[in-house]
Amino acid sequence: MKQITAEVTLKVRFSETDAMGVVWHGNYLKFFEDAREHFGQVHKMEYLDVYNNGFFTPIVKSEINHKAVVYYGQEVKVKARLIYCAAAKILFNYEVINLTTNEIAAIGSTMQVFMDASSRTLTLNKPDFYSKWENNQLWENV
Amino acid sequence: MKQITAEVTLKVRFSETDAMGVVWHGNYLKFFEDAREHFGQVHKMEYLDVYNNGFFTPIVKSEINHKAVVYYGQEVKVKARLIYCAAAKILFNYEVINLTTNEIAAIGSTMQVFMDASSRTLTLNKPDFYSKWENNQLWENV
Amino acid sequence: MKQITAEVTLKVRFSETDAMGVVWHGNYLKFFEDAREHFGQVHKMEYLDVYNNGFFTPIVKSEINHKAVVYYGQEVKVKARLIYCAAAKILFNYEVINLTTNEIAAIGSTMQVFMDASSRTLTLNKPDFYSKWENNQLWENV
Amino acid sequence: MKQITAEVTLKVRFSETDAMGVVWHGNYLKFFEDAREHFGQVHKMEYLDVYNNGFFTPIVKSEINHKAVVYYGQEVKVKARLIYCAAAKILFNYEVINLTTNEIAAIGSTMQVFMDASSRTLTLNKPDFYSKWENNQLWENV
Repeated sequence: MKQITAEVTLKVRFSETDAMGVVWHGNYLKFFEDAREHFGQVHKMEYLDVYNNGFFTPIVKSEINHKAVVYYGQEVKVKARLIYCAAAKILFNYEVINLTTNEIAAIGSTMQVFMDASSRTLTLNKPDFYSKWENNQLWENV
Repeated sequence: MKQITAEVTLKVRFSETDAMGVVWHGNYLKFFEDAREHFGQVHKMEYLDVYNNGFFTPIVKSEINHKAVVYYGQEVKVKARLIYCAAAKILFNYEVINLTTNEIAAIGSTMQVFMDASSRTLTLNKPDFYSKWENNQLWENV
Repeated sequence: MKQITAEVTLKVRFSETDAMGVVWHGNYLKFFEDAREHFGQVHKMEYLDVYNNGFFTPIVKSEINHKAVVYYGQEVKVKARLIYCAAAKILFNYEVINLTTNEIAAIGSTMQVFMDASSRTLTLNKPDFYSKWENNQLWENV
Repeated sequence: MKQITAEVTLKVRFSETDAMGVVWHGNYLKFFEDAREHFGQVHKMEYLDVYNNGFFTPIVKSEINHKAVVYYGQEVKVKARLIYCAAAKILFNYEVINLTTNEIAAIGSTMQVFMDASSRTLTLNKPDFYSKWENNQLWENV
């Protein structure tokens, strides 16, 4: 398995908490999104790069496993790991660390596919621009 | 002043509450949106009708005045009033009633303008399809 | 395996769409929540019943598999299935059907545990009020 | 009139856009919240400080005026200005600047009151801890 990583630090918004006083479980998908976008910035493959090449990369699967709560006022670090796939898929794993308690708050994953932006049809092979980008990355073997 | 009204009943989502145990203040704009969309359905002027006539109607101003809280598990009734404007504007007033307590939870308003969907420029006159629709409504004098 | 089901029909909010023109993937967890709450109403085991018995039931795992998109203006039906668990867990499966296209838009699941509301510690056995409720349900064998 | 200010830079989340391809109007209240929380950090008067002194400061009024759109991928700067009030109120004005276009995207305001956290009743006089804090600030005359 080989991977590329990036991590981002976030402050929890009050509006992201719920009546149990903790971050509402569904908002972790926003944290994953933030980490994915940050990854895109760091590694030069942003949503708009994908779009300008004629593609969307919709999420077809997502999963969250909650390990500990995050309260309002706490900061989290979200680590995104892109896992290399031979198929035309983009697989990220995530780790959300509560920086106040040093606990892992959640782990999760998302799977994206390539869709032609104009026809909105699935692309079965990796687009060239993406394969080229993959080849230029320094993958870490794990 | 003349108006047309419609009202909708909503159940508060758990994800709409915050750490104070009540509906997060910003979510009232979603309640207003629900009431506006319901109004569109009832009076046959939906977002997609507007869009199919070549227009967007972005919100340029919104205001919320909170009078009482809404707790999770409570139902609200949202009343939308379209106020007739001579200018090319869509003005709604809203009233959010907590059906559990019979209190007014909030009042508010939104202002929309007409924007040409392809050029994304402001339209200074009411589009014909909209004027025609206005003429066919039974306005209530208040 | 035995199950109890309930289903609810929802209209997609404009604010739930994203720049691809479809429902943002994370908002399906709100649809799941709506279905779960509706299930609670129908089968008389609501969030507040749980809370009044001294418990929270936080979500510890959630999963969404997207099969087709849902556009603004479309209605969805969300079917929630409570799957009987011997352990002190609440497992729901969900199916989101796009009523405009009759396609399955997504399937998914959530897992909840029982937490003592005052001590915020995990409860390893099913609380009595919940076992009693389970015994009174008409489970469907599948 | 006298004021204290703070400003924060934010990246727009994909999930914050809508089907018009721009930030959904209601999400500006989240930007205001971010600016308010950042203000609290900078000037040492955070939500949790208020809470630990026995108070909530719920928002009783908010207003947004939209001047220009913000697209996904653009950064915004949000400037929060606390305006001094003799009454027991917290009044913020906001300015959202689209850093990509240098346009003002929106201006707005929020009004908060002091509520006793345990009794959930309104406090008509400024709490002591807050008056003390006000006295220690360097207000700018405008």
